[in-house]
Amino acid sequence: MIKLKGKQANTLKATCPIPIEDYPQVLMAHGGGGKLMRNLISTMFTPTFDNNLLNSEHDGAVFQFGDTRLAFTTDSYVVNPIFFAGGDIGSLAVHGTVNDLAMCGARPVYLSLGLILEEGFPMEDLWRVTQSIQQATQNAHVQVVTGDTKVVDHGKGDGIYINTAGIGIIEHQQTIAPSQIQPDDVIIISGDVGRHGIALMAQREGLEFETTIQSDSACVSGLVQDLLNANITIHCLRDLTRGGLASALVELAETAQHHIAIEEVKIPVQDGVRGACEILGFDPIYVANEGRFIAIVPPDDADQALNILRKHPNGADATIIGCVLDAKRGHVTMRNVLGTSRMIDMLSGEQLPRIC
Amino acid sequence: MIKLKGKQANTLKATCPIPIEDYPQVLMAHGGGGKLMRNLISTMFTPTFDNNLLNSEHDGAVFQFGDTRLAFTTDSYVVNPIFFAGGDIGSLAVHGTVNDLAMCGARPVYLSLGLILEEGFPMEDLWRVTQSIQQATQNAHVQVVTGDTKVVDHGKGDGIYINTAGIGIIEHQQTIAPSQIQPDDVIIISGDVGRHGIALMAQREGLEFETTIQSDSACVSGLVQDLLNANITIHCLRDLTRGGLASALVELAETAQHHIAIEEVKIPVQDGVRGACEILGFDPIYVANEGRFIAIVPPDDADQALNILRKHPNGADATIIGCVLDAKRGHVTMRNVLGTSRMIDMLSGEQLPRIC
Repeated sequence: MIKLKGKQANTLKATCPIPIEDYPQVLMAHGGGGKLMRNLISTMFTPTFDNNLLNSEHDGAVFQFGDTRLAFTTDSYVVNPIFFAGGDIGSLAVHGTVNDLAMCGARPVYLSLGLILEEGFPMEDLWRVTQSIQQATQNAHVQVVTGDTKVVDHGKGDGIYINTAGIGIIEHQQTIAPSQIQPDDVIIISGDVGRHGIALMAQREGLEFETTIQSDSACVSGLVQDLLNANITIHCLRDLTRGGLASALVELAETAQHHIAIEEVKIPVQDGVRGACEILGFDPIYVANEGRFIAIVPPDDADQALNILRKHPNGADATIIGCVLDAKRGHVTMRNVLGTSRMIDMLSGEQLPRIC
Repeated sequence: MIKLKGKQANTLKATCPIPIEDYPQVLMAHGGGGKLMRNLISTMFTPTFDNNLLNSEHDGAVFQFGDTRLAFTTDSYVVNPIFFAGGDIGSLAVHGTVNDLAMCGARPVYLSLGLILEEGFPMEDLWRVTQSIQQATQNAHVQVVTGDTKVVDHGKGDGIYINTAGIGIIEHQQTIAPSQIQPDDVIIISGDVGRHGIALMAQREGLEFETTIQSDSACVSGLVQDLLNANITIHCLRDLTRGGLASALVELAETAQHHIAIEEVKIPVQDGVRGACEILGFDPIYVANEGRFIAIVPPDDADQALNILRKHPNGADATIIGCVLDAKRGHVTMRNVLGTSRMIDMLSGEQLPRIC
């Protein structure tokens, strides 16, 4: 290991934007999708790599080459366990990245595939994951066109980690981004929330419920394409992964500097998920999903958008859950069944580690 | 863990293209850049994801959107140690991916950055790596435009793993690919070989040599741009990473189905590297580099190409090391100082694990 000499090390420490006395080491929560992660990204990464594309705080970067507008995104997948009810790390690695492209309003086209395998990982499991990736890419109409395989020593990984990066093409003239969110916009959710996180938690902890809770892991690109093909005006799209619905809404409200108001009773939650959340002490709006998103659309387009989503098997439970209000600063409130509203905050720590 | 039932599991096992009785588990060598890795890729991944872009066996995928030709590539970096003489995992993650784009004849433009951090990783090291990435992107004229951060439990990683994917633009009409290699082509190497692997090995094993051997980790995109700007015809480019010069040549010879003949005395090797290789029992042509490549050009362009490369600080030792001969099947031979030729094979096992 190359050690820095005294003065050099002190200078480095002094310039670190995360106070090292408070956070000498990376915590699980720095990858949890909540406040600590957002803080790490916004103080360390965004200012260091400072550029307009990264600064847009979108699910991916959108740029133009010649006449072509493209979206580009990446995600690493470290989910544990790798095989779970409703999916596995392979299909998840396709869905997650394809969905991020869809959230940019792009039609996903190409994926890269980076595998980090741990020495000793069963070859049969690698084959199973490979086939799952292939099946998911076929369903999502994307191709794996480039890849990389690394192997790390036994004990230095956890079976398999996958990175996918994706390129999608934007075939319309709309700008779909947090900056487009306006007062009076309507918030539509594409389906029920909380299944992915609870399915993983149940499996990890060996919890058994009356019916097995299945992850919602799915490609949502088709739903977005249907909206675009019907010329629905879309102001913003966001998938509800780490940190769940709540964290996604807070992030958008803060970026757009508007007030997002939602109603708790409108949020679809399966009975099994609600029950599990009560037992485990979770709030379903903070639990991760891998096949759900919100569409923020102008009021005139809301009903048609809802009808289009509901026609899709993966959007059958789509619902309007709230709207955007004018405000001096970005925040989110949720009205409960009794009519009282409360502020919704981002996940602060780490609720369910390694769910994606 | 979701377990497959008897029949389902047997079917899966039966279809696995890697014989599970021979390789029940992933070995370090499956990521080593040699025969086992090539076999894993060519039997499991390429046929499963079967498409023309992946099948081209290039350093990246080349495709067209509208009038624009782009290259797309990915690599994960698991190098150990993460700080080494001449670089670190951050700069390496930029150089490696930028170089892969350059090998496709593309000008690198955008990078994605996926971090997999281990819980407990020092925040100061993360900052140091972040700054190194930034410095390397600036030197390579690329931007990090999208990213992702995951944290895994302590003991399930090794400090930090990085994935970068890259997009580059192809601004010329040439097709630069293994399929373009022709008899009579000249093989030019951009500089001395073996420094990256030996620098890492020395550090890992605590070996001390008279002078510290520095990794050659560097961006080679400028050299390729200089060749293209001078209208040099380039048939193929390949960087000499895992598996070194030998494995790269064998891969190209087999893909192009030609005979590549090189001369041992022509291959530049620093004295320190040669000495270290003798002590450690390595052959420098199998040792990994991270700032070296070969350019395969028609004979009429060879001298001019050589002069252009030599003008660049990173190509000062560029040399012609061999040529392409007509043959019935792809293979590589190397003539030694005594004038005898021997077949050069790919690395079969794992010489130096986790060098990138």
